Amino acid sequence: MSIDEVLREVLQRVVPSAEERRRVARVVDETLRALERASRELGVNVVAEVEGSFAKDTWLAGDVDIDIFLLFSPATPLDELRRQGLLVARRAAEVLGAGWEERYASHPYLTLKVEGYSVDVVPAYRVDSPLEIRSPVDRTPFHTMYVRRSLEERPGLRDEVRLLKRFAKGIGVYGAEIRVEGFSGYLLELLTLHYGSFKSTIEAAAKWRPYRTVIDPEHHYGDLREVLRKFREPLVVIDPVDPRRNVASPVSIESMCKFIAASRAFLRAPSISFFYPPERAEYALDELLRSRAVVAIKTSIPRLPEDVLWGQIKRALRALSNGLERAGFVVYSSHAWTSGEELVLLFELESLTLSPLEKHYGPPVYSDHDVRFISKYLEGGAVAGPYIEGDRWVVIRRRKLHSVEQALAKLISAYNVGEHITECLRRGYEIYVGPRVADASANPEYRARLASWLVRRYPWLSS
Amino acid sequence: MSIDEVLREVLQRVVPSAEERRRVARVVDETLRALERASRELGVNVVAEVEGSFAKDTWLAGDVDIDIFLLFSPATPLDELRRQGLLVARRAAEVLGAGWEERYASHPYLTLKVEGYSVDVVPAYRVDSPLEIRSPVDRTPFHTMYVRRSLEERPGLRDEVRLLKRFAKGIGVYGAEIRVEGFSGYLLELLTLHYGSFKSTIEAAAKWRPYRTVIDPEHHYGDLREVLRKFREPLVVIDPVDPRRNVASPVSIESMCKFIAASRAFLRAPSISFFYPPERAEYALDELLRSRAVVAIKTSIPRLPEDVLWGQIKRALRALSNGLERAGFVVYSSHAWTSGEELVLLFELESLTLSPLEKHYGPPVYSDHDVRFISKYLEGGAVAGPYIEGDRWVVIRRRKLHSVEQALAKLISAYNVGEHITECLRRGYEIYVGPRVADASANPEYRARLASWLVRRYPWLSS
Repeated sequence: MSIDEVLREVLQRVVPSAEERRRVARVVDETLRALERASRELGVNVVAEVEGSFAKDTWLAGDVDIDIFLLFSPATPLDELRRQGLLVARRAAEVLGAGWEERYASHPYLTLKVEGYSVDVVPAYRVDSPLEIRSPVDRTPFHTMYVRRSLEERPGLRDEVRLLKRFAKGIGVYGAEIRVEGFSGYLLELLTLHYGSFKSTIEAAAKWRPYRTVIDPEHHYGDLREVLRKFREPLVVIDPVDPRRNVASPVSIESMCKFIAASRAFLRAPSISFFYPPERAEYALDELLRSRAVVAIKTSIPRLPEDVLWGQIKRALRALSNGLERAGFVVYSSHAWTSGEELVLLFELESLTLSPLEKHYGPPVYSDHDVRFISKYLEGGAVAGPYIEGDRWVVIRRRKLHSVEQALAKLISAYNVGEHITECLRRGYEIYVGPRVADASANPEYRARLASWLVRRYPWLSS
Repeated sequence: MSIDEVLREVLQRVVPSAEERRRVARVVDETLRALERASRELGVNVVAEVEGSFAKDTWLAGDVDIDIFLLFSPATPLDELRRQGLLVARRAAEVLGAGWEERYASHPYLTLKVEGYSVDVVPAYRVDSPLEIRSPVDRTPFHTMYVRRSLEERPGLRDEVRLLKRFAKGIGVYGAEIRVEGFSGYLLELLTLHYGSFKSTIEAAAKWRPYRTVIDPEHHYGDLREVLRKFREPLVVIDPVDPRRNVASPVSIESMCKFIAASRAFLRAPSISFFYPPERAEYALDELLRSRAVVAIKTSIPRLPEDVLWGQIKRALRALSNGLERAGFVVYSSHAWTSGEELVLLFELESLTLSPLEKHYGPPVYSDHDVRFISKYLEGGAVAGPYIEGDRWVVIRRRKLHSVEQALAKLISAYNVGEHITECLRRGYEIYVGPRVADASANPEYRARLASWLVRRYPWLSS
């Protein structure tokens, strides 16, 4: 299939139909009116404004998140903004007969369920310039305005944005949240505007290099090398509305590299699977686990805001991996799965057990800690030495911990792997080793994710 | 025992008796006269001069090496010096009825066996200043003269030198040859002269630090930091007769650190065992080998000059250790034993076998080598991946080589571990693993050395 054929097919799926546009527009209108009525009734001085991909007309068919901001005067105290914002949103939900749920970003907001659509109602400050914002969400109206205006000049780019968003979703790097550490919608819009089309963005990305790629659409800076020095991040895209900000700041090196790799692969062999990954074939999970050295820790966790949870999960994975490495294990890979209530931390190791002996380095010969080390090991516990290697005392000794279960149990009891998860682990956990790792959760989604983590093959990658 | 008591006892053993002095002096005289007669008979214009520890009166009782230099005019061509030097020495041996053996340092010399004593007869140039030397041995007469004069002023230091030499021998760091990489007699003499006694040398060494210790007895340099920058070696002792030279250049960091550690240990608990290590108790070699992960390569080697041989052996140990590490093994320690004809290279590893799977890093995602890597592993051979970690492609794959025998056999067939030993290995070798390592040589000295390498405990170390 040629690139053009693939893109034509994707466009048929991602561009909303007139019918769908009408339906979403009606929901937006109804919600706006409900919010206006609610604020009037409650005597709250606020303006409701549509932001995000719907306002910019860059949303994907069948996959729209509606964002409505409640813009307050900067004179409003922050706690008043929060209280009144939620009050207005909740009252609007009543008016609409819609379900709702409270969520947290930098401050709380409400997600309404209106006729099957998710509508985020976010309180924010209406400021005169992005340089005066009080919280990150206050920047959003400026982003919306910037992209709207730019796309009004080049309306053909809206569908190009849609292609790029679907591509990022397909390869698993869509979203600035900590779980993904990927590309926000706004970032993908800026890239499309900058490079001029989906295809030219992909062609450029195929040549990106981490820590060497800078885009400054509004030419805020004179020297791009200066920008690289200022923002030491894998990908740097200067915010058109705020030169102090790197829009690509949340993008991890791995997400950027996935984007690079997928771009290269797509140009070599275009296929719909970059946009819509095919369902995975069933893997023989038991067989996979038998041939690999895998261990799982299962614990239960309280409901937490998504970003808080994933910040903690990533920290715990890092801390436990480091601890295992320090104990002598080689960690090939780690991963986490959570249902929101259960949490399973997964580690693939070179081996689940360690050799019986280890080489242990002591102090330099000229250190005053030498006596303690020498005495300790002369009295017993050394299989060889103390002897000297380079400038240090060394012994060969028996390991205290041989199995990964022992090592993890010790790490969990002694280690701070991050406030929340340490607390959960202290309350209780189970360790699963080898083929038993499949039983860490009864959730069928867990087994599927476990298998796909073990196979670690991108559906879009072909030879 | 106090330091003074220990040193008194050592002095009784290391200071030659009047009777022994007379015997050695007679041998020296006879040899000198024979050399003079030989040069007269052969019409060679040369002066025979006694150098080394006998000339300086710093030799150890029962342990004297007599050095006699045949000093030629700088006008003599090098090949003439070599030819005539050996001719004179051989003729002198005939006159004395002494056995002899040809050896090599920077050029060939003869070792005569005169009445049970080894006498090295070394041809060299008589130059006016150490700055005009043609080969390193030409410097020796200046060293002899410098130390003789210094000790004539402070004759009491001769026995202090004897103590320090015996100490260095006792802890295994005496000798500048490549096998030892330790302290030459001249270096130990300079240290004694510099610090003023055996005890103050040991006290100073207890505070030495590698790469931070400089001694410049004749104050050739104004700034010792400048000396450290110029000579980037663990220990720096500027030659009094030649400021360009670091007398301690052959001292490895390990030899220096053994000296430091033994000095600290001696000051804490003085004992005769630093000077005369006790015979080791017999170790249960089989049991030792069963509890450790040891492999040996045995090959036969031709007779080579000592320094050439050990240069090659050390290079081979390094190359094979690196090769094993690159194959995934962890090398705890390596060692070599040679009878001069048999050579056994020994390696202690964390484990004699590797886990079945390995993590293998491919090119960065933005590299043009990506296609080859991806295609290769998509077609088979990867247990997981290709996937992306950081900015690189990675796979988990089966290891080709699991056992240390396989790995060593491959290294030996494909690897240059140094000219001579590679040649020997190509002609034939045997690999011994685990308890069988004891059988690599039938030489009883081998089993003793193997055991003491496995135990790796200094006889002088006590808690």
